[in-house]
Amino acid sequence: MSNHSSNPWTTLTTKEVYASPWIKVEHHDVLNPAGKPGTYSVVRFNSWAIGIVPIDEQGYTWIVGQYRYPLECYTWEIPEGGGNKSGTPLEAAQRELVEECGIIAETFKCIQELQLSNSATDEVAYLFVATNLSFTQSRPEENEQLSVKKVHFDELYTLVANGSITDSLSVAAVLKIQLMRLEGMLTIQPLIE
Amino acid sequence: MSNHSSNPWTTLTTKEVYASPWIKVEHHDVLNPAGKPGTYSVVRFNSWAIGIVPIDEQGYTWIVGQYRYPLECYTWEIPEGGGNKSGTPLEAAQRELVEECGIIAETFKCIQELQLSNSATDEVAYLFVATNLSFTQSRPEENEQLSVKKVHFDELYTLVANGSITDSLSVAAVLKIQLMRLEGMLTIQPLIE
Repeated sequence: MSNHSSNPWTTLTTKEVYASPWIKVEHHDVLNPAGKPGTYSVVRFNSWAIGIVPIDEQGYTWIVGQYRYPLECYTWEIPEGGGNKSGTPLEAAQRELVEECGIIAETFKCIQELQLSNSATDEVAYLFVATNLSFTQSRPEENEQLSVKKVHFDELYTLVANGSITDSLSVAAVLKIQLMRLEGMLTIQPLIE
Repeated sequence: MSNHSSNPWTTLTTKEVYASPWIKVEHHDVLNPAGKPGTYSVVRFNSWAIGIVPIDEQGYTWIVGQYRYPLECYTWEIPEGGGNKSGTPLEAAQRELVEECGIIAETFKCIQELQLSNSATDEVAYLFVATNLSFTQSRPEENEQLSVKKVHFDELYTLVANGSITDSLSVAAVLKIQLMRLEGMLTIQPLIE
């Protein structure tokens, strides 16, 4: 795609109004693309968002249930976590899969990058498929209270298709994998009922 | 899916640390699921995120190019905008499609709900397919400097598949539509070269 890289916004002042271990919030005084004065609120994330779909030789995967505090609801998702920007997304994917599910994967493939909310935040997500699995002890962080469930990928696809799972990383990863499968780019054993 | 609805977090205090026309940022003192003291940063969005894929009878769609200030990059996306929570997502989809592309659609179908970043924000997105199109004058807001391009849906799918488009709403909508098409739930005329 063409680049049009010149920034039509002019930043007049930038003020950090909040910082926590996870985010920084900035208030910018700007001139908008029409040249008029305005403001822009920018939320910067200290970490990447990482999501992993582990798939075993029978086509089974693992999903994680937890209470999501900002939305005040219990959700099921693919294994996810934050990736420190001093490391690589792959290192974070490897660590999260062990921590949340006790799964070591020989093979990781990054299948999708996402800008999660690009009008308001700079958060970027990386999604992986993990295969050639072996198992160890999970070690969730103490601020996490996780349920882990083994389901077939076909069941996970149904949960996304029928709207039971709406987490953006899970939806994008599962739809992408189903398309890769239909396009012959990834083999997953079908569910034998 | 099972609900596990009880909240394992205890909120001790909530303080609003920032508010703008678009977001509110809250700092919470909490007891985490292990019962230990901690903090939680919550970003609340005043609007829903809305994304629309208009598709005409020849399988063509429209994409929007703009500079995304938080990520400091130019991106191409499906038509998107914010939906005021006093109205419905459908009303916002109808308005955004006229504003950004000058397109009036007779038929809107909501194909996907997304929690965009549910560990940190309460932002929810609704994605639509719009068909039975007619055309009028677009009227972008003055803080927007948009390019609009007509491309075939097959070309848009290629831009998502090859990683040229990474906006989460665009990726989820385009992958979902391609699957609906392959599963016979939506008919899109193929590109005639």
